[in-house]
Amino acid sequence: MDMNDLVIISVDDHISEPPDLFDRHLSGDLLASAPKLRQTAKGTDFWEYQGLKFPSVGLNAVVGRPPEEYGMEPNSLQQLRAGVYDVHARIGDMDVNGIAASLNFGSVFDFAGGRLSKAPDRQLAIRHLQAYNDWHIDEWCGAYPGRFIPCAILPCWDMDATIAEMKRVSAKGCHAISINENPTVIGLPSIHNAYWKPFFKTVNHLDMTICLHIGGGNPAPHASMETPIEAWISTMPMTIAVGAADWLQLDALQEYPSLRIALSEGSIGWVPYFMERADFSNARHKAWTNSRFPGTMKPSDTFKRHFLNCFIDDAFGLQNIQHIGEDNIAYECDYPHSDTLWPEVPEYLWPTVKHLTREQIDKVTHKNAMRWFRFDPFEHHDRKDLTVGALRAKAKAAGVDISPKSSGGARPLSEGDNRPVTSGDILEMFSRHDRVA
Amino acid sequence: MDMNDLVIISVDDHISEPPDLFDRHLSGDLLASAPKLRQTAKGTDFWEYQGLKFPSVGLNAVVGRPPEEYGMEPNSLQQLRAGVYDVHARIGDMDVNGIAASLNFGSVFDFAGGRLSKAPDRQLAIRHLQAYNDWHIDEWCGAYPGRFIPCAILPCWDMDATIAEMKRVSAKGCHAISINENPTVIGLPSIHNAYWKPFFKTVNHLDMTICLHIGGGNPAPHASMETPIEAWISTMPMTIAVGAADWLQLDALQEYPSLRIALSEGSIGWVPYFMERADFSNARHKAWTNSRFPGTMKPSDTFKRHFLNCFIDDAFGLQNIQHIGEDNIAYECDYPHSDTLWPEVPEYLWPTVKHLTREQIDKVTHKNAMRWFRFDPFEHHDRKDLTVGALRAKAKAAGVDISPKSSGGARPLSEGDNRPVTSGDILEMFSRHDRVA
Repeated sequence: MDMNDLVIISVDDHISEPPDLFDRHLSGDLLASAPKLRQTAKGTDFWEYQGLKFPSVGLNAVVGRPPEEYGMEPNSLQQLRAGVYDVHARIGDMDVNGIAASLNFGSVFDFAGGRLSKAPDRQLAIRHLQAYNDWHIDEWCGAYPGRFIPCAILPCWDMDATIAEMKRVSAKGCHAISINENPTVIGLPSIHNAYWKPFFKTVNHLDMTICLHIGGGNPAPHASMETPIEAWISTMPMTIAVGAADWLQLDALQEYPSLRIALSEGSIGWVPYFMERADFSNARHKAWTNSRFPGTMKPSDTFKRHFLNCFIDDAFGLQNIQHIGEDNIAYECDYPHSDTLWPEVPEYLWPTVKHLTREQIDKVTHKNAMRWFRFDPFEHHDRKDLTVGALRAKAKAAGVDISPKSSGGARPLSEGDNRPVTSGDILEMFSRHDRVA
Repeated sequence: MDMNDLVIISVDDHISEPPDLFDRHLSGDLLASAPKLRQTAKGTDFWEYQGLKFPSVGLNAVVGRPPEEYGMEPNSLQQLRAGVYDVHARIGDMDVNGIAASLNFGSVFDFAGGRLSKAPDRQLAIRHLQAYNDWHIDEWCGAYPGRFIPCAILPCWDMDATIAEMKRVSAKGCHAISINENPTVIGLPSIHNAYWKPFFKTVNHLDMTICLHIGGGNPAPHASMETPIEAWISTMPMTIAVGAADWLQLDALQEYPSLRIALSEGSIGWVPYFMERADFSNARHKAWTNSRFPGTMKPSDTFKRHFLNCFIDDAFGLQNIQHIGEDNIAYECDYPHSDTLWPEVPEYLWPTVKHLTREQIDKVTHKNAMRWFRFDPFEHHDRKDLTVGALRAKAKAAGVDISPKSSGGARPLSEGDNRPVTSGDILEMFSRHDRVA
């Protein structure tokens, strides 16, 4: 086996939605009242909905730029690679990067639809959320069968509507759902509250996979406004540990032994320590905490039974695969965000997995993704057509252009300022971006 | 070599201060105005100072209790093992646990003296802080030469006084100082601010070691009030990563290549991932972040040059010692807090280090502590008298009693309630504790 034989499924990528998002999924009043993509006089895109304004462009969607411009925040779709919003261009970008299939999170309503809960008319928001899922499942994922893992968002503020939407998308073949890693952040009860019981029951009944993506739930802390931004970038993935520890205590995990939870963008190298520490804390404290791990089951056993950990570039974690569990690891690309190694994913990935057995390589590159997400690209494609080598040959024939493109956007510092960019600079830039929207 | 041959130095333990704290270090008006230990009608100890009230008992000082009572918060010194506040009893508790020497953080003014900055008369607070350091260095550590690593607190709100106090304690043989991991939390400028330049210059000039203890600076997040407490306990050490990433970006590290920083209670198993991720973030982003790692120096190189990582029980980390650096790891006991493995430290420690070379074992158990803290117990004791076997023989002869003792305190749940204890329960209990004080 060599690099070109890899079959790579990415379980975490992103879309910034195109302007015609709702056009083929609604009509009449519902289409008229659907979110609309607008642009300010300064050229900044935003979505307008029920009097609210949401930033259009997924923060940090910088794929394909020269590295000097990674910190420049895109303002409009025109400043992005077309693959970010156009599914046909996306397939080209996947091919050139050797990615066989991909799970995509949306941007406009955040990764888990939370922004829709702010709409004044929440009943109407449910209709638009359904149309959004139809676009995602039928139009985006449906355009290239076997190349996308559909992932729906839910109207979590209304549990009956949530259950109904889960049933609806499940019947359409969507088996993944994205919810906020910490619902208390958007004003909902915690995952330990009885409010969520029907949700977990339905996840189990419909055999769905819960995706928890960093960023919208538990905060990713940064020490101070003067802290250089690299510090914040470096600790961001690992902050999912707070959510992972929270979910690890969920009663539903003991009630439903098949429940599956994917931690998106959390990385893996810290996971062996996390499990060891969870076991230590349980062993030292269970005499007074009334914790719910039954019998001889340790937190680490529960973690391995229920959690999929995802990595972008994690050599140390992959050297310790036996401590994480070869069935608990999947690759993610994070296209088009700044961590993505597009278009060189195979070149980075291969050296970090080539010491593994063939079966382990297959598991972390695609078999775990297939099993955890109930997804089978080989129903639609021969395996040999989804390898890195085959996809890249196809991209070459199609002439996919990967040369870096300067593309504009907001700068965190004024021209010529060469002090380190800080957390405060980035927050100020983001807040200008939000104010314009 | 076997377990009984280990020489163990612990670089992180705690004291809850005794009532006669200032008696031998002040007189007249200064003694009269010094903090006083009081007790409420309900039997809860607190310190009174300049009209402020501070909790007396170090939270979680539960060593020596039956495990069922770990969650019961002690209210008074009488509910603690004497070793928590009495240095002679402490030596017995160290002996029985095979601990040759120990660095102790105080409790009443927090681990780094931050509470004193709230005093209305801060000039007076500086005098009392000096007396506190005198007590710690001369009376506590001085009682048993070679058994304690002195560690001073500083009046960081006044940089001139801070520099003066560093010089004063340094002249007394104290080479470690504890400061807040994130000074912005107590209203001071960030570590990247010019405010701290004289501090780092003096640390370097006096060859001191900076201790950053979790708990008083960057917050240790918990997902929700309904989250079972084991989640919070398990992620607490790892939250030091936010502080570590912040300090890793410090300009002074490039200016002073010998600067030494000890991360207290941060654990080690996550460190290889952290360094790998810091290098990745730097490599991907340095083109726009103006980061200050010079030439070919990577963040991981800087981390290894400047940071000491400490562990309580960390088998995975010790299996990966080559990824952390055998010169960058030291043992800590965390006596008397609930993570401590007292009085069985050697029994837990030995299986996790015995695969290492003799030199590596010596480094992680005591040589690194000696080098990083400029401390030499062998100036005062023969090595053979500080081994686990020798100290335990001494404790046996002295009749140190290690049987678990029921000792009272505040309960997080009412009697008979067997639901899981949550973050909210613990915060409510702590806030009752603070209100009483």
